[in-house]
Amino acid sequence: MSELFWPGDDRAGTVFSDQAYVDALVAVEAAWVGVDPSDWAPVTPVDLTSAADGNPVPALVALLRERTGRPDLHRGLTSQDVVDSALMVLLRDAVGTARADLETQVEVLVRLAAEHRETPMVARTLTQHAVPTTFGLKVATWLTGVLDAHDDLGRLTFPVQLGGAAGTLAAVVELGRDVAQARDGLAHDLGLSPAGPWHTTRRPVTRVGDALVACTDAWSRIANDVLTGSRPEVGELAEGSGGGSSTMPHKANPVLSVLVRRAALTTPQLAATLHVAAADQADERAPGGWHAEWDTLRTLTRRVVTAGAQTSDLLSGLRVHPDRMAATLAAAHDDVHAEQRVMADLAGHAPEGAYLGQAAELVDTVITRAQEALR
Amino acid sequence: MSELFWPGDDRAGTVFSDQAYVDALVAVEAAWVGVDPSDWAPVTPVDLTSAADGNPVPALVALLRERTGRPDLHRGLTSQDVVDSALMVLLRDAVGTARADLETQVEVLVRLAAEHRETPMVARTLTQHAVPTTFGLKVATWLTGVLDAHDDLGRLTFPVQLGGAAGTLAAVVELGRDVAQARDGLAHDLGLSPAGPWHTTRRPVTRVGDALVACTDAWSRIANDVLTGSRPEVGELAEGSGGGSSTMPHKANPVLSVLVRRAALTTPQLAATLHVAAADQADERAPGGWHAEWDTLRTLTRRVVTAGAQTSDLLSGLRVHPDRMAATLAAAHDDVHAEQRVMADLAGHAPEGAYLGQAAELVDTVITRAQEALR
Amino acid sequence: MSELFWPGDDRAGTVFSDQAYVDALVAVEAAWVGVDPSDWAPVTPVDLTSAADGNPVPALVALLRERTGRPDLHRGLTSQDVVDSALMVLLRDAVGTARADLETQVEVLVRLAAEHRETPMVARTLTQHAVPTTFGLKVATWLTGVLDAHDDLGRLTFPVQLGGAAGTLAAVVELGRDVAQARDGLAHDLGLSPAGPWHTTRRPVTRVGDALVACTDAWSRIANDVLTGSRPEVGELAEGSGGGSSTMPHKANPVLSVLVRRAALTTPQLAATLHVAAADQADERAPGGWHAEWDTLRTLTRRVVTAGAQTSDLLSGLRVHPDRMAATLAAAHDDVHAEQRVMADLAGHAPEGAYLGQAAELVDTVITRAQEALR
Amino acid sequence: MSELFWPGDDRAGTVFSDQAYVDALVAVEAAWVGVDPSDWAPVTPVDLTSAADGNPVPALVALLRERTGRPDLHRGLTSQDVVDSALMVLLRDAVGTARADLETQVEVLVRLAAEHRETPMVARTLTQHAVPTTFGLKVATWLTGVLDAHDDLGRLTFPVQLGGAAGTLAAVVELGRDVAQARDGLAHDLGLSPAGPWHTTRRPVTRVGDALVACTDAWSRIANDVLTGSRPEVGELAEGSGGGSSTMPHKANPVLSVLVRRAALTTPQLAATLHVAAADQADERAPGGWHAEWDTLRTLTRRVVTAGAQTSDLLSGLRVHPDRMAATLAAAHDDVHAEQRVMADLAGHAPEGAYLGQAAELVDTVITRAQEALR
Repeated sequence: MSELFWPGDDRAGTVFSDQAYVDALVAVEAAWVGVDPSDWAPVTPVDLTSAADGNPVPALVALLRERTGRPDLHRGLTSQDVVDSALMVLLRDAVGTARADLETQVEVLVRLAAEHRETPMVARTLTQHAVPTTFGLKVATWLTGVLDAHDDLGRLTFPVQLGGAAGTLAAVVELGRDVAQARDGLAHDLGLSPAGPWHTTRRPVTRVGDALVACTDAWSRIANDVLTGSRPEVGELAEGSGGGSSTMPHKANPVLSVLVRRAALTTPQLAATLHVAAADQADERAPGGWHAEWDTLRTLTRRVVTAGAQTSDLLSGLRVHPDRMAATLAAAHDDVHAEQRVMADLAGHAPEGAYLGQAAELVDTVITRAQEALR
Repeated sequence: MSELFWPGDDRAGTVFSDQAYVDALVAVEAAWVGVDPSDWAPVTPVDLTSAADGNPVPALVALLRERTGRPDLHRGLTSQDVVDSALMVLLRDAVGTARADLETQVEVLVRLAAEHRETPMVARTLTQHAVPTTFGLKVATWLTGVLDAHDDLGRLTFPVQLGGAAGTLAAVVELGRDVAQARDGLAHDLGLSPAGPWHTTRRPVTRVGDALVACTDAWSRIANDVLTGSRPEVGELAEGSGGGSSTMPHKANPVLSVLVRRAALTTPQLAATLHVAAADQADERAPGGWHAEWDTLRTLTRRVVTAGAQTSDLLSGLRVHPDRMAATLAAAHDDVHAEQRVMADLAGHAPEGAYLGQAAELVDTVITRAQEALR
Repeated sequence: MSELFWPGDDRAGTVFSDQAYVDALVAVEAAWVGVDPSDWAPVTPVDLTSAADGNPVPALVALLRERTGRPDLHRGLTSQDVVDSALMVLLRDAVGTARADLETQVEVLVRLAAEHRETPMVARTLTQHAVPTTFGLKVATWLTGVLDAHDDLGRLTFPVQLGGAAGTLAAVVELGRDVAQARDGLAHDLGLSPAGPWHTTRRPVTRVGDALVACTDAWSRIANDVLTGSRPEVGELAEGSGGGSSTMPHKANPVLSVLVRRAALTTPQLAATLHVAAADQADERAPGGWHAEWDTLRTLTRRVVTAGAQTSDLLSGLRVHPDRMAATLAAAHDDVHAEQRVMADLAGHAPEGAYLGQAAELVDTVITRAQEALR
Repeated sequence: MSELFWPGDDRAGTVFSDQAYVDALVAVEAAWVGVDPSDWAPVTPVDLTSAADGNPVPALVALLRERTGRPDLHRGLTSQDVVDSALMVLLRDAVGTARADLETQVEVLVRLAAEHRETPMVARTLTQHAVPTTFGLKVATWLTGVLDAHDDLGRLTFPVQLGGAAGTLAAVVELGRDVAQARDGLAHDLGLSPAGPWHTTRRPVTRVGDALVACTDAWSRIANDVLTGSRPEVGELAEGSGGGSSTMPHKANPVLSVLVRRAALTTPQLAATLHVAAADQADERAPGGWHAEWDTLRTLTRRVVTAGAQTSDLLSGLRVHPDRMAATLAAAHDDVHAEQRVMADLAGHAPEGAYLGQAAELVDTVITRAQEALR
């Protein structure tokens, strides 16, 4: 990832950075031998090589053994124990960051939905004016997507990996260690869930991928509306501060929406890759399916976290133009009340009022759900 | 889908068939007006057209109104209410079928794992002999994947869709119907969960897709091992009855494994399509993102259900050759006990025994989990 | 595929239909023994089964041998020779159909581009008004995409498959047939290109997939503009006849654009599946990667051919509103001429004229390319 | 990309590096004003920011104008002209690197195929022993895939992008520059093809993506055979030097094959993302579809180039064991000659010889093709 090829990538900070990965790998090795990793000299990415062995653990173990003079380091573990546990540490942190952004968005959206609970606008289906709605209900719809994504992230677990060379824990037993104690200790020290070996059953990984894509799905759905609302012909919404053009001085582009939508065009395929890899698992360690996960997770998490931060900014700065909404609705009055006339006629009464149905009540329901989610 | 292009598709029976879809659409319209759908003359797929309006509901409503003479049919609903609720009925049934197959597999796998709890074989990592394991533990690993998939299917919900033209329920209100009562009644009659409108927040759909892919991931992981185990050079496993060749009389191909693996190469991209479509949602009804879901769900569910039936057959008929497992393990003895010698040396004792670590205990743990899942 | 789940699927007619597949399989077997297939009693899909052997050829061969009393049928071939050659026949026909639609579109677009060579409108970048352009240039841009897709389809080849059981042609040699003559005869009778065996190198298949996706990419790009142009607030474009709503009598939905865009959300993942399958090739016949292609090709070709027909209709019926284009451009005059003022100032002259640059010349260039492509 | 998350990424060197991108962006701006870019002080990635404007060009232009004191820099261009032309420079270089690796592989494979033209082994279909073949023919099959990929890369073109703010070239005309001369000069200086604007018709980009995936498809097909051949039970092939295990001293893992296969599990989805983005093009610049390409191309090209280098190493170091091949074939003699007996009987002669059909001639044909490709 890079800021130049993925504008905004800086927003992802240390999520799945090389150093964060090295730190997590070291943390696993340290926890395994009951050492505080800060007692060891720092290890940096340049200290390690990966390609010869296909993963960075052999080089890390050699380095740590040389530095500490302890040949017992890593004993009982296999490379995959270390890599998978470290990845779970990174995933837990990335998901935590995404959740925090979702919660920020929930707060902003609750405010927006309440503020615009009665702001009338035209609803559009298949691009055409349909019936009246409120901007509050539109926001509540956005909020529903954000809450769904938040629910899904909240259900994830991050299991420790401990199986030894091929999932039997034979070395741990041979070394005379108590397996349950060793596993629980490792999980505890790393802040992961205890779990049996999952080397070749990768649902813990694909679940994270699937839930992360649900975030960009939800954010893109918001961005799409802002993009349409920002069109000069519509003019109902605008980003707080637009991006500049290199040649057109008047332009204020909806850059955040553009970049959020961008992310959502790419994440589904990354999560699919995790599934293709999971389906390629074989034997007691897959020749390729496992390795395909690592950078895919890095790319996926950084894009999601970046899009989350950008969506938070987008929502915080969103400018709403109720006057334009009202004007468009008024101009479309005859069309968007056509259904009402039919229904009123069927019901035997005159068509009266704004024809907003339960828009306000639906807003309230979603706000209540949001308040419970944040509690 | 067709048996010729997707051998085994017949196994999916009426899952997402045209007639099942029509029946579900009719069921929604009937439930909405409190009619038992069997009171109406049957509607068949040839009675309907879709393309002019982009979905089959306008044609269905015209047909039903003409047949019944009731212009009040469908009043308060929009096409998407009917389509989405019908799709949820079909998804619920498809998921139920897949779950039943998973449960069959759990039973077979529990038996296999118990039977082979002590059957030694070589573990293979990155294609190479690693350390000893048991076939029981391999089966327990397969079972873990199946249980994970079963858990995920069990967590799915199938919400009714009811929002009217643009999610405000304005027509229902205009008609004077009690919204909560109408929604709960519709959900009850269709066997769906009550829910607020989700026309443009599609996590209920993508969750199903993601969970279904987890099934083929788990089954492919099994098939991969059977394919390797069926290689004449390995000879540890065989399908109960192999498929024939059109030119080589001696061949017994592992056809079920081939067809299961085939499915798993295709489903991740189908679930990704559901996410791409979800991220394309916009306004109060997406121009394309919604429509892309229907046949994608049909293809995905039929492939998953077919693969589930094939995996059940594969497991039920699986032939295990402990003699070949033992012979391979014996031939590899020095290599696969190399780790043991290092560990024993570290621990200060002689390397003794089969070096199976906690293989048996791990089998027991997974069997216990399976028994709880089936309870 | 079905009209209900994929509205418009009827437009694909017999493309990759079960019967077309059976006919092609029979044609291969007939050509191999020098028989006119119409001399044989018709075979229908219900005559065949696939699942037991993983493909329909063993059942077909048994049927044909029984009916004809000729045990020499199929001798020298393997199932994959028959399936792959038959698929190439179907792909050639599907691609031919798509090309014909592209050519229809080229003609319509050339007319539209010429007609609107001078029709001014506002150009939009990142949803915002940018500078003036012409509708003719927008059409020329659409046309460029269509021509690119047409070029790609024109470059495809459809090779015959002939290798025998494992690509050595050993049976053909053992039977004493001249291999080159047999292969060329088979290719000639089927209308395919002669080629060496490609059983496990699938670029002939993935090339078709990639080129077909380029079609929906190009059509979706058009549909996107029609969707935006059809928004009431924009009002510059409209489909010839819109789709109806089940509850809102006034609506005229841009149904063709919706359905074309729908297709384009799904085809990239189908082509990706062909690549995933190609990368899974192994040994002398892949256990799954081959089988995953068949229904994927069927779905992909039918969706592309359907979208092609829908795009042709969309373009033929497209209604253009130069008055709305002019009004929007006029209203945005100051903004969209901002760049011009800067440039004129730099160039030391007054900003004069419509600021359309080479719009007209670019239209002419694309029209010339189109005329050459159709020649 | 990073070596830790994608072992071997270092092999991609400066392909699509941040600095290479900055250099290409600067090269476009310099060529536009007729300056040798080495006359300007170097620009580094840290000098630029992207997120505020959604792309790095506004910041670059501001920097260059400030440094050079020339406000005329960039005049007539739009950001997309600069980004797209720079990306084409990077793609051309990446494709050139991949082609060079393909050519190295062609040479090695020609040697291997010739050397093993007569080396008998068993052919395997659907994992089962089928008939005899030669290792030379297997290699020729690998070579066919490599040649197909090489052909496809050779057909690619890398067009310059020049359209100005919205594709009309209005600013260029307003500035009084000769458009044809300016475009041809820009293309010449950058080593790209002259072309009309393709801002929103992205086939030049998706064609590169599709062709790059064909490379990993071909390489994975080789890696799959090496992985199977490396299984101890098969033992027909081995990598020159295997990767080590962190806990099992005896292991020599087929690391290069593992890493090549890994790449092929991920690239189809990246190319699909380019198509999803292309299909999202709209107006005169897409709000997201364009931006989604950049890092996708970076990831795709680096993975392909890395896999290319790894495949070259894999093939150069490949160890072949004709003795094991012969032993397996001999042990399977009765089965793999079953077809021969049937055919000989039909032909009325005794089954004689190795039943290798045209294996040798097919090898020769592919070698001839290879020699022509390298000429």
